[in-house]
Amino acid sequence: MTLKIALAQTNFLVGNIAANVDNIVNAAIHARDELGAELIVFPELTLTGYPAEDLLLRADFIAAANNALYQLADLVAGIALVVGFPERDGDKLYNSAAVLHQGAILACYRKRMLPNYGVFDEQRYFTAGNQPCVFEFNGTFIGLTICEDVWKDGIIEDNQQAGAELVLTLNASPFNSGKIHQREAVICTQVKAARIPLVYVNQVGGQDELIFDGASFVVDADGEIIFRAEEFKEQISVVEFDGNQPLKNTCASLYTEVSSEYRALVLGIKDYVRKNGFQGAILGLSGGIDSALVLALAVDALGADHVEAVLLPSRYTQDMSNEDALLEAQLLGVKHHIIPIEPAVNAFTGMLADIFANSAKDATEENIQARSRGVILMALSNKQGKLLLTTGNKSEMSVGYATLYGDMSGGFAPIKDVPKMLVYQLARYRNTLSAVIPERVIIRPPSAELAPDQVDADSLPPYEVLDPILERYIEKDQSADDIIAAGFSREDVARAISLVDRNEYKRRQSPPGIRITGRAFGRDRRYPITSGYRGI
Amino acid sequence: MTLKIALAQTNFLVGNIAANVDNIVNAAIHARDELGAELIVFPELTLTGYPAEDLLLRADFIAAANNALYQLADLVAGIALVVGFPERDGDKLYNSAAVLHQGAILACYRKRMLPNYGVFDEQRYFTAGNQPCVFEFNGTFIGLTICEDVWKDGIIEDNQQAGAELVLTLNASPFNSGKIHQREAVICTQVKAARIPLVYVNQVGGQDELIFDGASFVVDADGEIIFRAEEFKEQISVVEFDGNQPLKNTCASLYTEVSSEYRALVLGIKDYVRKNGFQGAILGLSGGIDSALVLALAVDALGADHVEAVLLPSRYTQDMSNEDALLEAQLLGVKHHIIPIEPAVNAFTGMLADIFANSAKDATEENIQARSRGVILMALSNKQGKLLLTTGNKSEMSVGYATLYGDMSGGFAPIKDVPKMLVYQLARYRNTLSAVIPERVIIRPPSAELAPDQVDADSLPPYEVLDPILERYIEKDQSADDIIAAGFSREDVARAISLVDRNEYKRRQSPPGIRITGRAFGRDRRYPITSGYRGI
Repeated sequence: MTLKIALAQTNFLVGNIAANVDNIVNAAIHARDELGAELIVFPELTLTGYPAEDLLLRADFIAAANNALYQLADLVAGIALVVGFPERDGDKLYNSAAVLHQGAILACYRKRMLPNYGVFDEQRYFTAGNQPCVFEFNGTFIGLTICEDVWKDGIIEDNQQAGAELVLTLNASPFNSGKIHQREAVICTQVKAARIPLVYVNQVGGQDELIFDGASFVVDADGEIIFRAEEFKEQISVVEFDGNQPLKNTCASLYTEVSSEYRALVLGIKDYVRKNGFQGAILGLSGGIDSALVLALAVDALGADHVEAVLLPSRYTQDMSNEDALLEAQLLGVKHHIIPIEPAVNAFTGMLADIFANSAKDATEENIQARSRGVILMALSNKQGKLLLTTGNKSEMSVGYATLYGDMSGGFAPIKDVPKMLVYQLARYRNTLSAVIPERVIIRPPSAELAPDQVDADSLPPYEVLDPILERYIEKDQSADDIIAAGFSREDVARAISLVDRNEYKRRQSPPGIRITGRAFGRDRRYPITSGYRGI
Repeated sequence: MTLKIALAQTNFLVGNIAANVDNIVNAAIHARDELGAELIVFPELTLTGYPAEDLLLRADFIAAANNALYQLADLVAGIALVVGFPERDGDKLYNSAAVLHQGAILACYRKRMLPNYGVFDEQRYFTAGNQPCVFEFNGTFIGLTICEDVWKDGIIEDNQQAGAELVLTLNASPFNSGKIHQREAVICTQVKAARIPLVYVNQVGGQDELIFDGASFVVDADGEIIFRAEEFKEQISVVEFDGNQPLKNTCASLYTEVSSEYRALVLGIKDYVRKNGFQGAILGLSGGIDSALVLALAVDALGADHVEAVLLPSRYTQDMSNEDALLEAQLLGVKHHIIPIEPAVNAFTGMLADIFANSAKDATEENIQARSRGVILMALSNKQGKLLLTTGNKSEMSVGYATLYGDMSGGFAPIKDVPKMLVYQLARYRNTLSAVIPERVIIRPPSAELAPDQVDADSLPPYEVLDPILERYIEKDQSADDIIAAGFSREDVARAISLVDRNEYKRRQSPPGIRITGRAFGRDRRYPITSGYRGI
């Protein structure tokens, strides 16, 4: 007996239940008619999208999702649908998966393992289920699981003991660097131990800070991956089973790490712009590496016609910065403006002259330049309905080397979670596809150009040293002593850590950005601003 | 047999374990020597402060807290200490309370009910305990509980069944309007049912968005409150017990609702400025009611010498606005500056003239005015190390009637959770203490003064209508249909809700502010920006 199962690696919009129902129906009809599938598996919480966050606390939203599930059962015949939805039962809410077949709900499973760490808050919304769910379909006994379930020892085995010959997993498993390998390693190990094949369907797409990478797969009972969908793309695929044995299929190859990261950033920009209805994007182009990379990402995400660059030189901007910025705009074929900021800076300086008459110059004057640029960029964004992309990287966000309401202005921060050294790697990677970032931009010493002959290294340890310290302190929660013991100087560690500690207030008002590391400055790092903790 | 128990209603700094230990020791010595106490009870998670958020994920921080507990046991003799701390046991962390006496840990309790809703994320950090803890002290059997425990049916009764004659509760229970009455009602009901007296110790102080109001109390077995500490003040008090019967004591009277709210806002400003080491505060004074109220709050919190006001008139600012703003600064005795914004606005207009030549005027030009003010205010803040207070209210934050990087600029937003109608009530209340807000500011129609003859009512439903709609939609999660059924027009409801839905991006970049309602725009409302959900 054979069984054809479709994996629906879909990119749905959080919150729009009606549109998601339409998309489910279309995918199911396609899988049935074009691919000959008898059963189609969708990602976790298909109907609402994931994560719907506090929308899940709204009774109207939950009622709409539950009504939609019942309607959906009648909308498609000739194929069984496995969809995720927030199931209300009395005053409890479950993260559930239902099997819809011939107008009825054939089975319904309640997720047992509710992640409540990192970016996840599932215990805020859901009650945990407490039992496996195995249903018979065309003579095969199939177990249902949801995301975190299959990361935990015992759940797949438990399905096997409950009679399952095959396990389906609905997922919304967010990307970070290295995550795809980690995910496959963990799950294949579980599968191999339980000796029961597994179909893993992951959603794809950008949702605020999170990127879902897709890369859905099928593992056989030996723990071998016999099918893998592409990363970062919508894809509806079908895998044929003989009994519960999956037949050999195509495996999309995995991208290299830097290539995956680049694609994640492109998808994040594309989906934020598209799903939020912007007319395109604009950004300030300084001639530095950060804005050069963001420009390339934006063009790759939206097309050159939908991206606009603005050069905002000051008296401290070097000629080569202007030349390189212009060259970047030309190489990528985007519209650009040049607006020198001196008139605004002079106006503010004049307005404050009396009050500041007896004060020495300090960062205040640098911030005025950055904020004058912010006002111009926001005016262009407001007038045209284009999203302003801010170009700061993770190293800067960590140590507060950025001006609030200045270069931090913007609706979205694509490289907010990209450390500076990785910015260089991504720029070099992009140039291997086509040369769009001038070599001089990559090799010259980074500078904010807010004072004469300023370079970042005046204020910060070199990025080769700073980045690994930051990774240890922020992503791995290592103590100063641990980091020093790993070979970094006490001076560099002290400088880096004290800057991180002091700049939480700044990060709190920064725009959302794309998460590509194991811990970004978003939902996954919740630090108090008011804090007497000093890492050193 | 009598027993004197001290209630340590303390205001500690989150994260500073060493300072908190010193404060615990000083409080214990005071309670022992001045008040004759034999046992002193501190608030929840005394050693780390509450909420320490993701500091609790740091191994160095947890190790420091556990070490501090063991040291503390040896630091004070002659009085037993009940302190809260994050207890590590293997790879698990518990929210615990230890009884320290004569150099030893007499008992240790692990919190059983871990709140993971609203502003609380305790399941992100802690494992729940699973049993009561009753210890004998001077012949009395005493049960330990922590905060959420005593809000849940069965826990106090369970202590009684475990032999407790008296229950102690360590708390970090945040304020919102009406919370003190609610808290006492819930807990007295539980106590009355179990017929066992209870000592409730709450922390006091501001911590980022949260205000802890104190108002610690003692309930006798009949459910009568026989002692209450003051709201919003540090206080170490002692209550004498005869066996387990508390002897009659003084009950601080509760403030009226508006008076409590005012005090909460004052404490919030004071603690944010003090705990973050600012030299004082500055704010823009427009002549409108919002900035008038924030000025009064800031002066009441910090003293007139530590507050500075800046008038930033434009061509659209009416004379009466300037007059009233000046009068407010004079009545409260604060230093002020007058800086007309025309030079900056003209500079930006000129810089954008070519690009905007064929565009109609829209909100862009209004935003340039607001952002020019933002740049000036931030320059003054940066130069002097004074905290910029932003003056927007909750109604504006809800519907996005504010300019990002303009009037939303600032490190702290004191009235961010105060709906406009409550702004008026608080202003009137403040004037009953001394007349500091001119009557004309209270009675004139509110206006942003960013265009000729502009008033808020041009863009928004009147606040008498808007505020209750917002409360129902945002705080109570009511659907549009529910709100219309309650008597509001479909047009007003649609306008309000669609503005709330569309402005999540703006709120995400707003400064933190003081929570005084049941749901603020902070940790307790987690909405996606990218969302297809439309409330109407």
